[in-house]
Amino acid sequence: MLRCSSLHGSPCGVLAPCPCLPCIAISFPLPTEIGSYTRELVEASGSFVLAVPSRAMARLTLAVGSESGRETDKFAAHGIAWTPGEHTGGPLVEGCLGWLECRLIPEPHIQQAYDLFLGEVVGAWADPTVFTDGHWHMEESGKRSIHYVAGGHFFETGVPFEVTPGR
Amino acid sequence: MLRCSSLHGSPCGVLAPCPCLPCIAISFPLPTEIGSYTRELVEASGSFVLAVPSRAMARLTLAVGSESGRETDKFAAHGIAWTPGEHTGGPLVEGCLGWLECRLIPEPHIQQAYDLFLGEVVGAWADPTVFTDGHWHMEESGKRSIHYVAGGHFFETGVPFEVTPGR
Repeated sequence: MLRCSSLHGSPCGVLAPCPCLPCIAISFPLPTEIGSYTRELVEASGSFVLAVPSRAMARLTLAVGSESGRETDKFAAHGIAWTPGEHTGGPLVEGCLGWLECRLIPEPHIQQAYDLFLGEVVGAWADPTVFTDGHWHMEESGKRSIHYVAGGHFFETGVPFEVTPGR
Repeated sequence: MLRCSSLHGSPCGVLAPCPCLPCIAISFPLPTEIGSYTRELVEASGSFVLAVPSRAMARLTLAVGSESGRETDKFAAHGIAWTPGEHTGGPLVEGCLGWLECRLIPEPHIQQAYDLFLGEVVGAWADPTVFTDGHWHMEESGKRSIHYVAGGHFFETGVPFEVTPGR
């Protein structure tokens, strides 16, 4: 699961740079109060951070995804530590396994028509205990990324495996 | 991992309809021969199918993702059984765990500028042995979806878990 944030702040751990992706699309498909505020922040700041939470952060992930930041400072309310991203100043939340710093590519038509926002990935970072030499090593570290389904249901990222072509 | 196809064919198993998603974005980010042909098929047919392969299909998934269909009929070459989707006629490949039939929403600017294609989801289907009552049950069935990383490396979808807010 990728969580989207769009604010600023203080320092966290050591991060390993990853190969950058050129472009990513995020969506605010539901006209909820929560999504609408995040959307306003993304539009106002012109940037956002996509973060990959760990299993240990599942409850926090659900909580921050279920509340609006319009009335509450969710970072303060949940004691969330973070460091500003080098490229955008956006928050790299401590405890996540990876972070993508993105600059909004303004495309008003698709933002309005499809609630779809495009970002140029300008920085990619990962927890070096789970990502080294261009690969994820979740098995060895015991840390796993999570994927949200709905209604409090998640999946962990599972067993890695390799397939050799033609074998 | 979602595999994208854009052709037509013959019958497969019993499918359970799922709640539909309104819109989905797919990308052909690399100007490879393989991606470029699929892109042409999507543009020509105005529709595509996104399918969720199972672990048992990992080798096939890698193979069809590594070859171009321009010179070879990959369905024939690999003996791939499929049934035409009810809404688009696109191929629902047998053995996958889920399928989304999508109609291309023509947006020439973003297709050209970002290699990004939008689809309206007009049909959603799942293998009833892994998806019932609105939920995935991969644990019970022993069938798992897979996620491609790169270079023949995959992850399985892992353990499901539930978080209760405020607990």
